[in-house]
Amino acid sequence: MNAFTPTARSQLRRRPQRGRYDEATIHGLLDAAVMAHVGYVIDGQPFVTPTAYWREDNRLYWHGAAASRMLQAVGEGVPVCVTVSFLDGFVVGRSGFIHSLNYRSVMAFGRAKLVTDLAQRRAAMDAFIDRLYAGRSVKLRPATEAELKQIAMVEMEIEEASAKIREGGVADLDADAGWTAWSGVFPVETRIGSPRPEPGMAGGQPGPDLAPYAPGARLDDALSASAKGAS
Amino acid sequence: MNAFTPTARSQLRRRPQRGRYDEATIHGLLDAAVMAHVGYVIDGQPFVTPTAYWREDNRLYWHGAAASRMLQAVGEGVPVCVTVSFLDGFVVGRSGFIHSLNYRSVMAFGRAKLVTDLAQRRAAMDAFIDRLYAGRSVKLRPATEAELKQIAMVEMEIEEASAKIREGGVADLDADAGWTAWSGVFPVETRIGSPRPEPGMAGGQPGPDLAPYAPGARLDDALSASAKGAS
Repeated sequence: MNAFTPTARSQLRRRPQRGRYDEATIHGLLDAAVMAHVGYVIDGQPFVTPTAYWREDNRLYWHGAAASRMLQAVGEGVPVCVTVSFLDGFVVGRSGFIHSLNYRSVMAFGRAKLVTDLAQRRAAMDAFIDRLYAGRSVKLRPATEAELKQIAMVEMEIEEASAKIREGGVADLDADAGWTAWSGVFPVETRIGSPRPEPGMAGGQPGPDLAPYAPGARLDDALSASAKGAS
Repeated sequence: MNAFTPTARSQLRRRPQRGRYDEATIHGLLDAAVMAHVGYVIDGQPFVTPTAYWREDNRLYWHGAAASRMLQAVGEGVPVCVTVSFLDGFVVGRSGFIHSLNYRSVMAFGRAKLVTDLAQRRAAMDAFIDRLYAGRSVKLRPATEAELKQIAMVEMEIEEASAKIREGGVADLDADAGWTAWSGVFPVETRIGSPRPEPGMAGGQPGPDLAPYAPGARLDDALSASAKGAS
């Protein structure tokens, strides 16, 4: 099993039993989300920007407007932390101390670099579309050169990463016995709602590229299925 | 209307029409979530840690184990960026360029300080419980001094903040006319699932403190209602 070797930067210090360093877990979680929180530093000030991203092999990609402060900053090869998280539930106990959240998260560290070549940028844009909606890019109007020039895109090899997972029920303490407040877990579920077709849109029903986004589908399942469909 | 005055740190550069600086919007979004991404810097390396947080007036609080690297780092008064985001939908267009996500987000900047007094820490723990589950703290076994000592808690006055919101449908381009790929929005909805009571738990049905977390309730609505119940 391939795994990342944790250093002081990525090793979990608290609750090490929640930590995972294997690629299968980390890449699997990264493929189950579309929004990351990208952390970077400008003049000592940290910024955390929510941004759409995708994974290919051991690289993360994200993009945005060429004028974006975030992309200008991280494209210079400075250290970056990309964090992805899933809130899975409220853990409700009989003492304040024991309340918790169920979650899954990944912290990935690396240095991003700008994808400067226009042809590579076009290929990466198509890869992002196809990662989200497998087979969709060929159905779309191709980007013009002017559009590609408005986009900045960065690529980050994951140098190291860790996952952290808290799941299951209440970690009851002996001292809580006899207290009668309700105790248990309220799961949190993120799902796809009913599609809202664009008025005047000529395109009939959603095609197979959009099939994973069926109403009621779990978001993490839809994204994982789309990632598999694209690879 | 009270509003934050944006500086170079918080002013939106890209798509300024999506930016909001008024307290009502920013505090409202902060009250509709429980998980923030806290960005901080150690020796030039950015870290982004997902963490449960809450708001009181213009202050944010979060806590964790006293041994936590994040809490030790941010408790020293270094600059911090706390970002909260909501993914609301996939915007699917007829050109790659026009695909987008619907989202709401807040970036809040400040310097955190440790809450060192044990009595204040106890009060803040109760405030966190009651913010999530209004009126619950009095039903719970009180924290012992040993438990309080295991917890580190930080408080951050929000110095400045901005919100960014993308909503609505596809921002169609004239050039996309005639392309027949399906186009529209797949909403993303985060809701409460069916409660899983703890086996052996003595406490009957969930009380009014847990009422906002009814199965099927939107998470942002449940958290907003709980915040109102607590204040």
